[in-house]
Amino acid sequence: MNIPSKHLEELVEHFSTLPGIGKKTALRLVLNLLKRDEEEILSFSKALAEMHEKISSCSRCGNIAEDDLCSICVIPSRKQDLICVVEDIRDIMAIEGTEQFFGLYHVLGGVISPMEGIGPHDLNIESLVQRVQAGTVTEVVLALNASMEGDTTNFYLYRKLADFELKITTLSRGVAVGTELHYTDELTLGRSILNRLPFDMTLSKR
Amino acid sequence: MNIPSKHLEELVEHFSTLPGIGKKTALRLVLNLLKRDEEEILSFSKALAEMHEKISSCSRCGNIAEDDLCSICVIPSRKQDLICVVEDIRDIMAIEGTEQFFGLYHVLGGVISPMEGIGPHDLNIESLVQRVQAGTVTEVVLALNASMEGDTTNFYLYRKLADFELKITTLSRGVAVGTELHYTDELTLGRSILNRLPFDMTLSKR
Repeated sequence: MNIPSKHLEELVEHFSTLPGIGKKTALRLVLNLLKRDEEEILSFSKALAEMHEKISSCSRCGNIAEDDLCSICVIPSRKQDLICVVEDIRDIMAIEGTEQFFGLYHVLGGVISPMEGIGPHDLNIESLVQRVQAGTVTEVVLALNASMEGDTTNFYLYRKLADFELKITTLSRGVAVGTELHYTDELTLGRSILNRLPFDMTLSKR
Repeated sequence: MNIPSKHLEELVEHFSTLPGIGKKTALRLVLNLLKRDEEEILSFSKALAEMHEKISSCSRCGNIAEDDLCSICVIPSRKQDLICVVEDIRDIMAIEGTEQFFGLYHVLGGVISPMEGIGPHDLNIESLVQRVQAGTVTEVVLALNASMEGDTTNFYLYRKLADFELKITTLSRGVAVGTELHYTDELTLGRSILNRLPFDMTLSKR
């Protein structure tokens, strides 16, 4: 691609480092930005420049925070003995959206993936063990994605935490709410039969 | 979506104003940026802030330029009497990539689209007429997209330019090189039969 301006090329280069954005898409984005007011662009640029200064990680759970602790860790009514382990902060937002979890979180920052060269030491696992060692935790929910890497990480975490006196749970796998049974993949349907639950009137009314 | 930081939300907001990028994708992009070095982010932010200062339009054709004229308009060996009218600068890059056009360009900056509220006066049509009025142009190639809006704009331009003594041409429509005939849509195939050309040995050897 022969871009007729060095500066334009530099900007396209920056945008194309983003995940899922190739050179052509990046060019489309930059050309769209070129049509905007200078004021808007400067505000965008400023927000970007201040990102590292204004957004930090919660020193306890690794969630996005603007202070030392995140907006969830500072709530005293949260169950302090229940920790939900997630891959990244988008999972926190998804679980918070359900309004069904009232404990704290722990963000691993990824999952173990030999293919991508991510080992246990690249993740926030040591800090999870320390939180558990502090002795107040009674249950750890492993809420990682149902992938090969997620399962590997679950297994690693299980081994790390097995010696402590606590309950280790994972999210239930099964048929999604609202889907047609015959469209569900065999693995999920199989698991949902193996893990069948006693019928609960209150759940079907929700 | 309940984003746990005001500043993060502001950045996501900025990214989600880009075409084709929704809130969820924007969040993914920003979380990816958060993992980068501060230096890289500052360079990105700087490139964005300097965009309007460093990138301008060619005063003659409307292409991206770093000076008064663009990198194509300053080449004296370009055919000065041949103007190719395109919708935006990506089309210039595509045509330049073919190495088959040696004239100058004129960027309309869009096409007439009543649906999106874009009329002839929002486009660089007056400056095209002025270039033609200057009297040195002998051919105008209308190279707009083969869409309803492109055809409308072609027709408008044709009416504007019909009184001048010059040739008005458009890109040929037909079966794409390398495609299977039976996969080509009926409209394109029909046009390619209507506009059939004398067989040319040199073309089939390319």
